[in-house]
Amino acid sequence: MKLLEDRIRQDGEVLPGNVLKINSFLNHQIDPQLMMAIGEEFAKRFKDAGVTKILTCEASGIAPAVMAGYALSVPVVFARKKKPSTLNDAVYWADVFSYTKKVTNKICVEEKFLKSDDNLLIIDDFLAHGEAVKGMINVANQAGSSIAGIGVVVAKAFQGGSQWVTDHDLRLESLANIDNFDDGKVHFVGE
Amino acid sequence: MKLLEDRIRQDGEVLPGNVLKINSFLNHQIDPQLMMAIGEEFAKRFKDAGVTKILTCEASGIAPAVMAGYALSVPVVFARKKKPSTLNDAVYWADVFSYTKKVTNKICVEEKFLKSDDNLLIIDDFLAHGEAVKGMINVANQAGSSIAGIGVVVAKAFQGGSQWVTDHDLRLESLANIDNFDDGKVHFVGE
Repeated sequence: MKLLEDRIRQDGEVLPGNVLKINSFLNHQIDPQLMMAIGEEFAKRFKDAGVTKILTCEASGIAPAVMAGYALSVPVVFARKKKPSTLNDAVYWADVFSYTKKVTNKICVEEKFLKSDDNLLIIDDFLAHGEAVKGMINVANQAGSSIAGIGVVVAKAFQGGSQWVTDHDLRLESLANIDNFDDGKVHFVGE
Repeated sequence: MKLLEDRIRQDGEVLPGNVLKINSFLNHQIDPQLMMAIGEEFAKRFKDAGVTKILTCEASGIAPAVMAGYALSVPVVFARKKKPSTLNDAVYWADVFSYTKKVTNKICVEEKFLKSDDNLLIIDDFLAHGEAVKGMINVANQAGSSIAGIGVVVAKAFQGGSQWVTDHDLRLESLANIDNFDDGKVHFVGE
């Protein structure tokens, strides 16, 4: 998605450890117009996939997921990283290992929001090692929901998550595919 | 906002301790079409207020804030409840006391995203005792930004936050104003 790649080139910061910081338009400050374009792009790619619901993870997944949900006219469920005090109903839990922080966190989704006849589009901001996506797939499997595909805003193609997704016969759509950060610059796949 | 009040009457759950649970369309599962209507309503009410940026708080504030930002064509900044590992730059911190959990949490916003010439619309999902809004106002004050107003999806008018905002000469727009939960039902102000 050229609009997104251009924005990453313009505003993204490459940090040590293969970290791309794009908090001026996605992870802290959000550009709503760009998010709508991203949501529409996901909707275009998955329009014939029979998506009934979008599953994402708080907090940075919410903006692109809500725009995709708007464009596809389907509800969005965001997995919580802490069980809210008002959440007393049954939930699905999954572990998510963070490579950046070297800790395992948990995500949870209330059972009633995912059904066995749901066909989920899983959306996230980043796909690196794939741990968050694996956690969401785990939740979907517990619910018996099928998975229409995985949509990520940015994939770091060299960190294994993209390979894992396609190895598991899941459809992956990443709107920006990063090949490497050689010389501290963003190089997209196919450049 | 009648569409929202109807949805709260239909899907909201009143829990002990004056808690309204609306996690089927806002706090866990999100209805993107309703969020767009909410964003457009905020935009209509604040269109002449000279808003340059929206400030909200993760995670539940993001969906309504992003839709309002889309409708007003301004960026959205969401305060983080934890400092991300990639955030090494200077941040503004504020305390937010949670009446539900009886603990004080912190929120932070990277300094570079709030400027002294910004005129902020502060958006949140709920206004109860007003602690989250006070935290965001604290952050705005540290940045020297002015405040165009406070927009909340649901105000529990009887819990002091609404009174505090208007007592401080700040404009408050709440799209649903709850007067009380007598008999376990939602009663809106003016009914």
